[in-house]
Amino acid sequence: MIECLVNGEISSQVSVADRGLQFGDGLFETIAVIGGQPRFWQGHMDRLSAGCERLGIPATPQAVLLRELNTVSAGNPHCVVRILLTRGLSAMDFSVVNPAAATRIVSSHAWPLQEADFATLGIRARICHLRLGIQPELGGLNHLNRLEQVRARTEWQDASIWEGILLDREDHIISGIASNIFLVLSGRLLTPRLDRCGVRGVMREAILSAFRPRCEQRRLMLDMLPEAQEIFVCNSIEGILPVTRIDHWEYDIGPVTREVQDWLSQQ
Amino acid sequence: MIECLVNGEISSQVSVADRGLQFGDGLFETIAVIGGQPRFWQGHMDRLSAGCERLGIPATPQAVLLRELNTVSAGNPHCVVRILLTRGLSAMDFSVVNPAAATRIVSSHAWPLQEADFATLGIRARICHLRLGIQPELGGLNHLNRLEQVRARTEWQDASIWEGILLDREDHIISGIASNIFLVLSGRLLTPRLDRCGVRGVMREAILSAFRPRCEQRRLMLDMLPEAQEIFVCNSIEGILPVTRIDHWEYDIGPVTREVQDWLSQQ
Repeated sequence: MIECLVNGEISSQVSVADRGLQFGDGLFETIAVIGGQPRFWQGHMDRLSAGCERLGIPATPQAVLLRELNTVSAGNPHCVVRILLTRGLSAMDFSVVNPAAATRIVSSHAWPLQEADFATLGIRARICHLRLGIQPELGGLNHLNRLEQVRARTEWQDASIWEGILLDREDHIISGIASNIFLVLSGRLLTPRLDRCGVRGVMREAILSAFRPRCEQRRLMLDMLPEAQEIFVCNSIEGILPVTRIDHWEYDIGPVTREVQDWLSQQ
Repeated sequence: MIECLVNGEISSQVSVADRGLQFGDGLFETIAVIGGQPRFWQGHMDRLSAGCERLGIPATPQAVLLRELNTVSAGNPHCVVRILLTRGLSAMDFSVVNPAAATRIVSSHAWPLQEADFATLGIRARICHLRLGIQPELGGLNHLNRLEQVRARTEWQDASIWEGILLDREDHIISGIASNIFLVLSGRLLTPRLDRCGVRGVMREAILSAFRPRCEQRRLMLDMLPEAQEIFVCNSIEGILPVTRIDHWEYDIGPVTREVQDWLSQQ
């Protein structure tokens, strides 16, 4: 069973000179394969090409990526596939001299085990102390510079807390560490703008598209959290998880969250 | 000739599951080997252990790193050695579950060619449009999240401009893209505080230590650039380079810069 391809060859190694390792100079997609089919494939491809465009990394044809996804997920119809694209090999300096030689890594992974049915029961979250730096040049991109998330995740050990909520330095709500966030207020779905930091998740985009008339992307301040009637977080793998508690604030799992979950179950 | 060791073995490959690639979760040192000796070895080791301590990456004994540096630089007495430490292999998520298994990469590289004797003639620089994000959790560290520097370096093609000067979002001068910066004002050596962004270079630390009574680390605003009598940038490989021009501002190469260069030539 082939679990990893590097530039189309069976391998699980990359050169130490790869700019993905040296500088985090690359992008990735984490894709749910369900019943042998990649969920929201076009959404992942759209995000990846937009990211390549912004960073000046040559895009790989979608047909190549789909063939490789099928290769690494063959025999494992319920798995996670990761596509990682870097700017390729480099000299030691930051300058971009050879943008034609991207590295692509396509790998499959077991579906993550969960201790409970969090989609039904909901999850607990906490506000992280770490505040995301503001960097419009990289805002929204799913790039490989993830030390902020790594640092934020070290803030707690309590296994009953599933996610950490990240704010920026100006007290705007941005996202979870590995998820996007939606607040339900007066029946409307509010989610943070991600132009200055955070990652535009593919699940978030799919929800925005499916519920467009009731959705709003805006700056959300920390003090709006206790005002929300419902809160959920989402990502490509876990789907839509109701939040029942953030620090000392408690939330009911409400009808809007269940409606969005119902929509997802029909995708 | 051995040019690269990965965890002490002859190799130039790392696993695609390495957290250095997945998240940029690691640190590096770029060391000048001159006459077969690593320059400012102790400074590099001090910075690396401080970085490991801050990120919670297990430190490698210095004796091991020195032995490996000697192995990869044997037969090449004038070269650059890079030591890269990552948090090792990972599951796909951000949580740090196995901090005992760092990956270390020690590699040698040809000394970079320069088109001119920039230490004598000085260099030109420009102010970058990109503003560094403010992130005290990572400020000063020489970590592997370097997309800001990569992006900033794409802003110009003009080969006569050697360096880009980076400011933060509040118009503080921080550093060059691959160097630290010193301003000479009334005989004093001023260099930016690097507690919120930027990299504490080993050459910068060595200068601060050698010229301590005349040095000051402080917040430097953009509007101090035209006031400076002399400016130089520095890093471990290039040493000390006088700056003769930043955008439309011109500078003489003055006695303080030459004095610091003289000090370095005696190290």
